[in-house]
Amino acid sequence: MNDSTLQYRAATTKDLPTLVAMLADDALGALRENPALPLSKEYLMAFASIDEDPNNELIVVELEAQIIGMLQLTFIPYLTHQGTWRCLIEGVRIHRQHRGQGVGQALFQWAIDRAKHRGCQLAQLTSDKQRPDAIRFYESLGFVASHEGFKLKLN
Amino acid sequence: MNDSTLQYRAATTKDLPTLVAMLADDALGALRENPALPLSKEYLMAFASIDEDPNNELIVVELEAQIIGMLQLTFIPYLTHQGTWRCLIEGVRIHRQHRGQGVGQALFQWAIDRAKHRGCQLAQLTSDKQRPDAIRFYESLGFVASHEGFKLKLN
Repeated sequence: MNDSTLQYRAATTKDLPTLVAMLADDALGALRENPALPLSKEYLMAFASIDEDPNNELIVVELEAQIIGMLQLTFIPYLTHQGTWRCLIEGVRIHRQHRGQGVGQALFQWAIDRAKHRGCQLAQLTSDKQRPDAIRFYESLGFVASHEGFKLKLN
Repeated sequence: MNDSTLQYRAATTKDLPTLVAMLADDALGALRENPALPLSKEYLMAFASIDEDPNNELIVVELEAQIIGMLQLTFIPYLTHQGTWRCLIEGVRIHRQHRGQGVGQALFQWAIDRAKHRGCQLAQLTSDKQRPDAIRFYESLGFVASHEGFKLKLN
């Protein structure tokens, strides 16, 4: 993948059907997303909340004006580590037809540069233990699985 | 621990020396925090950023007007899971003299109630694999270590 052919930008409302379809086109995502159109208002409300928060950025990567990947960045200030900002990365997806071509690496390099630009000293993410390919991918980028990633459903 | 004797509130600037001392009084924290007074401006700036962000809450728990525990909540909107909010929990500390007395359980119950009140459907956190006691604690609360927790230093 020639990086210069990829374009990065913040997602817009118009992108939502494409993004939700991409989230649903996945072994785990298929169980929990609903890409039926029109999208449910919960997706629209969640996007509005992301879009209006200066510490959240939903980013898409395009190839020839087609969205082929996405991720969400959350910039968080903490007292820990002597008062530093962190970048939390979530909701990473690469379109099925564009995997194994370096798009993920390019998107992550963009995200890491963005996190540095925002003053973050640490990037973090969790990856489902049922996704061995994703785990190998993050390790290949230099991420260290030093932590257990715990989740608790609240309802 | 009788829950009714514990008080919960948002941290203020005046609390910072106590909070940083608590963060530093820990095997891992001792390596990365600096509780020397006056506190470095980075701690003050980080607190100001937390305090002004409606999606971040630095919470302290008090017993007889003394701070004995802390944690930070970050409320994050996501497209995933059909457009839901999550609560990220970080920077959890219980004062050395008050461990093993149920303060952590009470603080987490408060935090989980707060996350539900904010409309979150999932709570998540990462715990260093070098903290087996913490890992058992989170498991006892019903958290599931379904994910690997990855970190990448950016500088």
